[in-house]
Amino acid sequence: MTDTRVDCPVHIIGTGLLGASIGLGLRARGTTVTLEDVSPSSARLAADYGAGIAGEPAEEPGLVVVAVPPDVTATVVAGALERFPNAIVTDVASVKRASYEELERRGADLSRYLGSHPMAGRERGGAISARADLFIGRPWVIAGHGGIPYRSGRQLEALILDLGATPIEMTIEEHDRAVGLVSHVPQIVSTLMAARLAHGESADLALAGQGVRDVTRVAASDPALWVQILEANRANVAEVLTGLRDDLDTVVDALSEPDAQGARRALAETLAAGNAGVARLPGKHGSSKQYLTVTVMVDDRPGQLARLFADVGELGVNIEDFRMEHSPKAQIGLTELQVLPESHDDLTAGLEARGWRIAG
Amino acid sequence: MTDTRVDCPVHIIGTGLLGASIGLGLRARGTTVTLEDVSPSSARLAADYGAGIAGEPAEEPGLVVVAVPPDVTATVVAGALERFPNAIVTDVASVKRASYEELERRGADLSRYLGSHPMAGRERGGAISARADLFIGRPWVIAGHGGIPYRSGRQLEALILDLGATPIEMTIEEHDRAVGLVSHVPQIVSTLMAARLAHGESADLALAGQGVRDVTRVAASDPALWVQILEANRANVAEVLTGLRDDLDTVVDALSEPDAQGARRALAETLAAGNAGVARLPGKHGSSKQYLTVTVMVDDRPGQLARLFADVGELGVNIEDFRMEHSPKAQIGLTELQVLPESHDDLTAGLEARGWRIAG
Repeated sequence: MTDTRVDCPVHIIGTGLLGASIGLGLRARGTTVTLEDVSPSSARLAADYGAGIAGEPAEEPGLVVVAVPPDVTATVVAGALERFPNAIVTDVASVKRASYEELERRGADLSRYLGSHPMAGRERGGAISARADLFIGRPWVIAGHGGIPYRSGRQLEALILDLGATPIEMTIEEHDRAVGLVSHVPQIVSTLMAARLAHGESADLALAGQGVRDVTRVAASDPALWVQILEANRANVAEVLTGLRDDLDTVVDALSEPDAQGARRALAETLAAGNAGVARLPGKHGSSKQYLTVTVMVDDRPGQLARLFADVGELGVNIEDFRMEHSPKAQIGLTELQVLPESHDDLTAGLEARGWRIAG
Repeated sequence: MTDTRVDCPVHIIGTGLLGASIGLGLRARGTTVTLEDVSPSSARLAADYGAGIAGEPAEEPGLVVVAVPPDVTATVVAGALERFPNAIVTDVASVKRASYEELERRGADLSRYLGSHPMAGRERGGAISARADLFIGRPWVIAGHGGIPYRSGRQLEALILDLGATPIEMTIEEHDRAVGLVSHVPQIVSTLMAARLAHGESADLALAGQGVRDVTRVAASDPALWVQILEANRANVAEVLTGLRDDLDTVVDALSEPDAQGARRALAETLAAGNAGVARLPGKHGSSKQYLTVTVMVDDRPGQLARLFADVGELGVNIEDFRMEHSPKAQIGLTELQVLPESHDDLTAGLEARGWRIAG
């Protein structure tokens, strides 16, 4: 049982929330990390938090992670491919096609570029919000393309596993379509609802409960960043939004003439389609699936949780949901992993073989 | 310091989630509660959970609470006004105008009817989900109308305070407009997003993160109930939805032609309006307001938390947010109340005067 899968120095360009969190997670496993940012003081701040060493790498990195805003991603990736002629370069931008096409236009060495995308929250930015456990249990897409040999993805997959995330291979097209549906359109929908609140009476807002808070939570995100993301993925986003607008028209028509033939049925079918959509989400929310729980005892030491999820990822078991119980004073935490019934025994046996204590 | 404000027997008609939860909360304070349901076994189930005594009231109730589905609310309220000629009758339906107008048409005795609406979650129904603390810290609207003397509202206000909720007086029109904005439109928006997921590829859904889960959580609600609610409040809902559709058209147009004059600006302004809307919600989510915390020690006995919030409600202090810490083994819990800075000293002094121990 090794503690670290990445076996080369990693250089991180861009020390915002994602870059600094990656640095923190890798450092917790002992990997050599260097940090660079267009703002040197931002890089030094991330270094102060323990995300790595600020400055040029002393030895050539095997892996370079570009974690900068979407509109400069392609430029910074192209620069990194030139500066580090033996390194694999990845990025973590939310849309993969736009950068890839720009790299192609620039004639960059695509045989060493492999884009990726961790599905981890980022309403709050900056190294100050960074956490070593930001990626634990999250999907992390490796967006493959024809121009890169498969084995080049190994260090990137090792990094993802070391951070406790679950690597998912997709093509660039599949990725951009998927995030359009599950991330970019939800952002717009949340924004459209929140914008209505901006026009409401204050007394009306006093009645707000958990429902509207949940619907509008992500509407607090940074507009400048989201203009870039939405523009980069506009075709996929517009397609989903057009379908949504058709449904909205149906609802508005039904409410305008509730006694028209089929109006109530149209409302009921839209609401039922919503039920069906929620039930398709993996994990606990609204799902009717039954899961079994594997409870693992985890020492309260840095990096242990990431190590657990990395082992789970290597075992190839899909975690449907998880919950961590930390008592402030306890030396040990309990992590409950929920899995499909058919995975329960394999996961229990696999984790025990890797030295984990299973509590139930 | 009295433990109970309601000083009459209460009869509850309809023993689903809301009716049973009201019964549980009142019983915890010692009020006499009788329960009735169109399904006698449902009433007996609620009685088994401790929500009151199933059957006809032995003495005439001073307050009757009708907690039945929206489409039968007016009929059941009219029946209760006739059966209990000295009682104040209230209901807890989500829309107030439709029932009121039907009662008017039927010539019901409106001088004893005062509608109300607790803003408490109800994705899951039934007495089996009922909780005495369902209403704690929640707004509970008293929807006034010209035909009822103000003092008739006193027992209803006492009930709301005894359940730990915050009474809010509004007219029927104000209430229906407010819930259209903060509850009914968010439900539709969540449904429209979730319905898109029903059409997505399974692999795409594997990338779903917390954002889309939050946006679609309430879309798991019961379609039959929501068809009734939306129809009853259709004018208010349609007005907000029409504004939302205009914004949606703007976004779709901007994404279709991102290089058109003003397209990026339109996107940025919509996203910024979303930021502004979230910031207007009371409480922690997205708000830029600074609150102070009053931490109160609460004995781990039934009804104590409701008693605390009832005292807070009587002190007239608005709670912006609250958090409870329960340790499974501790005899005491800490409740953190977040208030505007100018309310901090009044709340601390007022609670201490009522015998509460303030921890910070």
